[in-house]
Amino acid sequence: MVLPLRLIPRLAAAARLPRAPRPISRRARLVPALAMAAAYSTGSGADRRLLFRQLFEKESSTYTYLLADVADPDKPAVLIDPVDRTVDRDLNLIKELGLKLVYAMNTHVHADHVTGTGLIKTKVPGVKSVISRASGAKADHFVDPGDKIHFGNLFLEVRATPGHTAGCVTYITGDADGQPSPRMAFTGDALIIRACGRTDFQGGSPDLLYQSVHSQIFTLPKDTLLYPAHDYKGFTVSTVEEEVAYNARLTKDKETFKTIMDNLNLSYPKMMDVAVPANLVCGIQDPPPKI
Amino acid sequence: MVLPLRLIPRLAAAARLPRAPRPISRRARLVPALAMAAAYSTGSGADRRLLFRQLFEKESSTYTYLLADVADPDKPAVLIDPVDRTVDRDLNLIKELGLKLVYAMNTHVHADHVTGTGLIKTKVPGVKSVISRASGAKADHFVDPGDKIHFGNLFLEVRATPGHTAGCVTYITGDADGQPSPRMAFTGDALIIRACGRTDFQGGSPDLLYQSVHSQIFTLPKDTLLYPAHDYKGFTVSTVEEEVAYNARLTKDKETFKTIMDNLNLSYPKMMDVAVPANLVCGIQDPPPKI
Repeated sequence: MVLPLRLIPRLAAAARLPRAPRPISRRARLVPALAMAAAYSTGSGADRRLLFRQLFEKESSTYTYLLADVADPDKPAVLIDPVDRTVDRDLNLIKELGLKLVYAMNTHVHADHVTGTGLIKTKVPGVKSVISRASGAKADHFVDPGDKIHFGNLFLEVRATPGHTAGCVTYITGDADGQPSPRMAFTGDALIIRACGRTDFQGGSPDLLYQSVHSQIFTLPKDTLLYPAHDYKGFTVSTVEEEVAYNARLTKDKETFKTIMDNLNLSYPKMMDVAVPANLVCGIQDPPPKI
Repeated sequence: MVLPLRLIPRLAAAARLPRAPRPISRRARLVPALAMAAAYSTGSGADRRLLFRQLFEKESSTYTYLLADVADPDKPAVLIDPVDRTVDRDLNLIKELGLKLVYAMNTHVHADHVTGTGLIKTKVPGVKSVISRASGAKADHFVDPGDKIHFGNLFLEVRATPGHTAGCVTYITGDADGQPSPRMAFTGDALIIRACGRTDFQGGSPDLLYQSVHSQIFTLPKDTLLYPAHDYKGFTVSTVEEEVAYNARLTKDKETFKTIMDNLNLSYPKMMDVAVPANLVCGIQDPPPKI
């Protein structure tokens, strides 16, 4: 089942706001931003509108994703699943590339690391945090299934993919002319390359995860590139077609999948008691008001 | 200075040899190889000929690169800088994707990990190891500056980029119609994102490294994607334009660069006494003849 799309005028407006303060000073840039940023796209021809970077945080094996519309004069950018430890690296890269960070987004409330969204908000005024309404966490914007998150002329579609947690979403590049081809899906912990996130806490449910992946991810075009929130084996990307064929868990029938998930015998996440409470409030409380 | 290209008929012939034994059994594949493999490219349209994967080995922070021509019926593939510890992961991926591994290549004799090329040769008969003639190492094929390494209708150009070691080369996707755009350069340890490899052993020379990067890498088109052999900060890719502007060492004048490199005070690589002798012979001696 593919959920219908609907616009979030609020989000679209914020991403395009012409008078929004530039979040990061551009004084240090050595190269004109437009010429430079256009060079970073992984696509070719019409796809060069998208700048895309995959960034890794080694301790928690987390991938953070940077996407920007570099054909838009403002070069609006989003960060998906930033980690608190690597916020300075990410913001420095954004500054060097001449981008304007608009949204710091989470796919879900993480249990294995502290999100960087709150820290980013203290360092870059104007950035808005984004998470699903179903997560129960605090953020500036809550998204629901079918929402679109605009940055310049690009957008991400929101799909509900609960099962690892009750509030997990997958962000997927748009299905429209001028959007990246093939599509790219940021699956969080719903789908990990050849595996999936655990389902034994935070409202997790093997039944629901199986249904989410099969109805919301495996139904995407087979060449859709899958970018998970974590990888522990050194893979960086997969595709729908590849996971449909080779995912060690999700290719099984539902009952076998549930048996696998109920018998993983994983240890309690070492950061869970720190990370989950923190991540319910963007990793940190709101910055204190300046006196 | 851009070195002239010349063909290696020997290598081109091996990559296309129609009767070469398929190195990995295809029995386990669930999906027709052509349809599937075509889906993995990061490019679009005409660029979908290239399948590209970046793979990470966490202990030595090494990137291994898989490239294949998936528009060729044989789907010939090359691996750049494989690591011994992750050979099984890499070969399994190659098997799943229905590729035919032709070359296992090194950018140089590594000091921080044992190459996987020898191990691959024991596991996949027919694969040829490749390294620069200037490296002084053992391999099936030695490449010189200007050589082209063909796999299907794609090719890599070889440029000499000594300075980290005396035999370092950079492999660069072809500069011709039908080759990937933007170009992709696999820089080994000559250029690391915002940094470079050390120059204090194995025939290293700051003078030579500076000259190599400025004449062979920084002269590439500014949108050329740069893929190093290592990253320690979680970056996955950069571009010529970005490194020309922001590389912390190589943007300096040559004298300053030499002073930086002469004062890094790095510790002796913990694996050097194991890795270098091993890597001079593809990581292992030739497999014993079968009796």
